[in-house]
Amino acid sequence: MHTILKSNSKEVVIGIDKPFIMIGEKINPTGLKKLGQALVDKDMEYVKYLAKRQVDWGADVLDINVGHPQIDEAAIIPMVVEAVKSVVDVPLCIDSNDPKILEAGLNAAPGKPLVNSVNGEEKQLATVLPIVKARGAAVIGLTIGDDGIPATPELRLAAAAKIIERAAKIGIPIEDIVIDPLVMTVGHDSNAATITIKTIELLVKEFGVNINLGASNVSFGLPDRHSVNAAMLSLAMKAGTTCSITDPIKLGSSIRATDLLLGKDANSMRYLKYFRATEKLRAAEAAAK
Amino acid sequence: MHTILKSNSKEVVIGIDKPFIMIGEKINPTGLKKLGQALVDKDMEYVKYLAKRQVDWGADVLDINVGHPQIDEAAIIPMVVEAVKSVVDVPLCIDSNDPKILEAGLNAAPGKPLVNSVNGEEKQLATVLPIVKARGAAVIGLTIGDDGIPATPELRLAAAAKIIERAAKIGIPIEDIVIDPLVMTVGHDSNAATITIKTIELLVKEFGVNINLGASNVSFGLPDRHSVNAAMLSLAMKAGTTCSITDPIKLGSSIRATDLLLGKDANSMRYLKYFRATEKLRAAEAAAK
Repeated sequence: MHTILKSNSKEVVIGIDKPFIMIGEKINPTGLKKLGQALVDKDMEYVKYLAKRQVDWGADVLDINVGHPQIDEAAIIPMVVEAVKSVVDVPLCIDSNDPKILEAGLNAAPGKPLVNSVNGEEKQLATVLPIVKARGAAVIGLTIGDDGIPATPELRLAAAAKIIERAAKIGIPIEDIVIDPLVMTVGHDSNAATITIKTIELLVKEFGVNINLGASNVSFGLPDRHSVNAAMLSLAMKAGTTCSITDPIKLGSSIRATDLLLGKDANSMRYLKYFRATEKLRAAEAAAK
Repeated sequence: MHTILKSNSKEVVIGIDKPFIMIGEKINPTGLKKLGQALVDKDMEYVKYLAKRQVDWGADVLDINVGHPQIDEAAIIPMVVEAVKSVVDVPLCIDSNDPKILEAGLNAAPGKPLVNSVNGEEKQLATVLPIVKARGAAVIGLTIGDDGIPATPELRLAAAAKIIERAAKIGIPIEDIVIDPLVMTVGHDSNAATITIKTIELLVKEFGVNINLGASNVSFGLPDRHSVNAAMLSLAMKAGTTCSITDPIKLGSSIRATDLLLGKDANSMRYLKYFRATEKLRAAEAAAK
């Protein structure tokens, strides 16, 4: 199954037979104070820097989140999208569950964007899915039901089934749905990762659907989070995860290495090209400091 | 299935329901010139240093290989084993396929050692297995047949079956066999890792046997080998690998992270303990320089 996203001139294909797709997560003021301030000041230079840097480091798609208490998000998000479009040519992932902000972002976004996200709660299904349909976008579906995040893989599968079914009813095909099985923090529950991996395996078997996983939550509260995040992505990729909203600067090399090991990189071409490019970027960034 | 190894006072259990076992690979003069010279000089201080350092960094078992052109290996290996025993109390893995060297090492080794290795060639089966049986040791069986390393998972499974069968005939139980499915370099063959992972899955399904994998060969010739080796171990562990002859200093944190994600580390106790211990070691080693 292929989920196709588009920018003005580029097409990105998410699929189990394709290289893993990295969706850059850094345009998000949560935990990035400098970006929050730039949005308050309507200064788009830092947004452009983040966009360009992530694409340089291998991001295929960029997530755009402007959630910040001091700004009018629906007014700001088109400015951010325009700034990003002015420096990079990649599909965008509009990240909000407020209908007004979502629509404003989607209207400004080029080609065929992705929506992050809808979950299985009645209220969200009823508001977000029609917006996705009207824009002809694809959407990330979180395996959350009306009672929160289910504890078992089977119940998460059921939450995904509900989203897929409700989307189908209004004409959104399963190809345009990417399911995020979620992962809790393994420091709090030692079964957190195995539940997620089992959920991915069930989703692939039942629906053959594309899977997104943001791995970094799994390591919350632990030291050396990189080792845990990198291992989690490798395990999730083996189980069938096809894209991740992630930091390409931190996890790009692990992701390209795992693609290589999973037989998705003939003659190591992508791996070697990525290594050479990031080696140069690392040197240039060190020199700039 | 549990493979039990013993030192004088400690027992190490290899099994899918147990934490992953690290077999320290550094006592091997191949690629470690300083160790080769120390063996020529019969100077055991560097051997002791390598033994102690690896155990400090989490090695559960130590591999002992004295292969070097300028020495009488059968005379040296008992000295090396005694030196190691004088500083650490862990089971040993005697690494040779020369019967005389193997016997000399096994006689000096404490408790119940592991033998590295036998393969499926007639000549090796006939010479190595009786030595393993006589010593009451466990043995690593490489999936190599009389025609070399088989190209498919099914043929590697058949090579393992032959070793298991021949061992059973002389009274070595399957619990005392650890199969190594081997991995070729992924830079030469982009299916190298997937063949190995499939072999592991078949071995677990058919025999439920313990699996050893030395991951570092997979990344031969590639840059940033660490990313590839770490990802390979995570994938192999998920498939059912239970131990590795490896460098705990380089790969220990990835291995402990993967155990944590596979649900083998209640309350992250081992992960946290390992992080704190290696943080101290790293600081102490940096200070010593």
